[in-house]
Amino acid sequence: MTELRAIILNASFKTSEDEESNTEALAKEVTNVFDKEGIHHESIRLADYNIKYGVSDDLGEGDEWPKIFEKIKEADILILATPVWAGEKSSLAKLAIERINGGASVTNEKGQSIYYNKVAGTVVTGNEDGAKNAASSILFALSHFGFNIPPNADTYWVGTAGPGPSFIEADGIENEFTRNHVVMEAYNLIHLAKILKENPIPAQGNVMED
Amino acid sequence: MTELRAIILNASFKTSEDEESNTEALAKEVTNVFDKEGIHHESIRLADYNIKYGVSDDLGEGDEWPKIFEKIKEADILILATPVWAGEKSSLAKLAIERINGGASVTNEKGQSIYYNKVAGTVVTGNEDGAKNAASSILFALSHFGFNIPPNADTYWVGTAGPGPSFIEADGIENEFTRNHVVMEAYNLIHLAKILKENPIPAQGNVMED
Amino acid sequence: MTELRAIILNASFKTSEDEESNTEALAKEVTNVFDKEGIHHESIRLADYNIKYGVSDDLGEGDEWPKIFEKIKEADILILATPVWAGEKSSLAKLAIERINGGASVTNEKGQSIYYNKVAGTVVTGNEDGAKNAASSILFALSHFGFNIPPNADTYWVGTAGPGPSFIEADGIENEFTRNHVVMEAYNLIHLAKILKENPIPAQGNVMED
Amino acid sequence: MTELRAIILNASFKTSEDEESNTEALAKEVTNVFDKEGIHHESIRLADYNIKYGVSDDLGEGDEWPKIFEKIKEADILILATPVWAGEKSSLAKLAIERINGGASVTNEKGQSIYYNKVAGTVVTGNEDGAKNAASSILFALSHFGFNIPPNADTYWVGTAGPGPSFIEADGIENEFTRNHVVMEAYNLIHLAKILKENPIPAQGNVMED
Repeated sequence: MTELRAIILNASFKTSEDEESNTEALAKEVTNVFDKEGIHHESIRLADYNIKYGVSDDLGEGDEWPKIFEKIKEADILILATPVWAGEKSSLAKLAIERINGGASVTNEKGQSIYYNKVAGTVVTGNEDGAKNAASSILFALSHFGFNIPPNADTYWVGTAGPGPSFIEADGIENEFTRNHVVMEAYNLIHLAKILKENPIPAQGNVMED
Repeated sequence: MTELRAIILNASFKTSEDEESNTEALAKEVTNVFDKEGIHHESIRLADYNIKYGVSDDLGEGDEWPKIFEKIKEADILILATPVWAGEKSSLAKLAIERINGGASVTNEKGQSIYYNKVAGTVVTGNEDGAKNAASSILFALSHFGFNIPPNADTYWVGTAGPGPSFIEADGIENEFTRNHVVMEAYNLIHLAKILKENPIPAQGNVMED
Repeated sequence: MTELRAIILNASFKTSEDEESNTEALAKEVTNVFDKEGIHHESIRLADYNIKYGVSDDLGEGDEWPKIFEKIKEADILILATPVWAGEKSSLAKLAIERINGGASVTNEKGQSIYYNKVAGTVVTGNEDGAKNAASSILFALSHFGFNIPPNADTYWVGTAGPGPSFIEADGIENEFTRNHVVMEAYNLIHLAKILKENPIPAQGNVMED
Repeated sequence: MTELRAIILNASFKTSEDEESNTEALAKEVTNVFDKEGIHHESIRLADYNIKYGVSDDLGEGDEWPKIFEKIKEADILILATPVWAGEKSSLAKLAIERINGGASVTNEKGQSIYYNKVAGTVVTGNEDGAKNAASSILFALSHFGFNIPPNADTYWVGTAGPGPSFIEADGIENEFTRNHVVMEAYNLIHLAKILKENPIPAQGNVMED
């Protein structure tokens, strides 16, 4: 049986010592499916780490991104989860993208980007509009850096236009569309990760040059 | 041996009776790799068809989208290619996305969206800035409708900021980055399409309800 | 007293012979304020016109864009209103942007773009997520072509994540945030249009060269 | 004579102790016009400050955003300048937007958002594609928070597709399009700021409620 590992990066501004993150609450619905299917998973609050600004996999003294990068390297599935602020992903989500970009030139034993054969998805929550913009930006960046994106790799919940309650307070999980997408995303991430683990992308046409 | 079919939709405003499309010129570089690898492919100028406005797979009398939709259904690989206008994909590319959206609820024999197990990529040309915005929008939409996106599924060429020559006139194919991405995209589309043809995504968690 | 004229372009797929457009219903809330303040206004369904694809102010025989362009030239206020499809403005809205772009090099008597001293806003409706993405794209394009954007020039209504009722059916006008933005946008368009009509932007640093 | 003040926020990752920022080099071209026209201006590297994550004008102990917010409040013109990373504005630019958002409910003596009667623009540099995406996101956010956007408020330079030299090394200032936009943006910011200082937006329809 193929063993799979997932890492969930939560780009909420809340640290794990703060109150519960709405984005984490929705991401947990996805990891509940992972539990059911025996997928190892670890969730990280980016706000718990001192992540320096820059586009590199390691920015030296005091930079805690390398700890996160190690977890990404070991994972088969990456979920970059984000709240919506000002109609877009959070600044912390963008910072994670910049740092993941910085690692895209690290190669696997075949000379492909280290991200090849990994799959990626996203989870987005906000009190209102902006989820697809956030998801589009995240999934494109990850695909451009080397990840595979399975069908329906975006799960989100947002409320009606304007200020209003967030996911937890609004009981967003009662939304049938959101619930269906939790299940679709979770299973499609698992399915494609498993397929690629057993049938890795051949090293033809995609090997990095020095 | 697995036989694969690719369809390339070119969202240029030029019909096939007009002068050569810059976007087609770059897309041909990708299909040259398909030729080398024995992949059947067909390229369509959307501007040759009368495509009605709306979000449906068939808008009735006079609507020629259904002819294109049939080709998409038969394909394993879809490339939606577009020029950049006003820093974004063309209106014709958006129209294609709306019509592809209209077919997302058509299901395969397992009850998944008809687009499952297909892979998608994009090709973008412009005289200047806007390629990643166009690619991001196209690849996210296709992923959200059920396509799989392999690594590096975007190939593009744009010139320096401001007005200037387009791909053909600028000899954009001399750009090493663009050439490398032609090869990566072409092979990754082939690799993932082949893998999924031989190992389709299981019908678990992703079957549409009535 | 300064007389002002407004033109509202509705990029819905519905023609004026179809059932009522949700986007028109929200745009009417804005024009109700115009009525109250004595602003002349005209609303156009883009779907009523044969608008050819391309980036020019006049694409020749059969192209009905020039009729619309004449109305834009006479207006002090332009509102480009759009429904949300696939998380973005409609293809018809993008087409309008491409055609407005085509007219950006037409100059006024001072040699500035014809759009200088005009103000622009947007109105967006959708059953779900995508309004800010649509508004951002529309307002940036119009600003880049020469229009002025006053504060809070975007009014929108979208429902909770997933399929659901549109603006009219959902009684979206009961949304306080949307109602407040109707009033803010309408008045700020009027205020800035009036200020610019009485104090036009000097022809310094912004005159087009031949 | 109307005295105007401009503040330029540079969202480069480089601090003022690092080598010269490409984005600053282009922003300086704009402030050279300000000098010529007697506009007071101050440029800030966001990377010099400890800006906490969150959506508030003041996040308490150790947060240095309030120092920047004071400067924004005193300014008539705001330029948010950013490098392009991964085809978008930098994470620091997004953080600035989130913090500016946090101040949008602070009101002036008429009860309008504090940002009313101020004008905003952007400056973007990158080695390649992404400038319009960055500009669109920045200008929309600022307009949505209460700033006015004059015509052609975006100046940018990016090179041809793919890796390559940045603005300074590439002598990007030799690009005629970029130079023209420097002048247009600088003058239009000055013109509209002056017009609004002498003719502020009336407090009608745009006063915040408690």
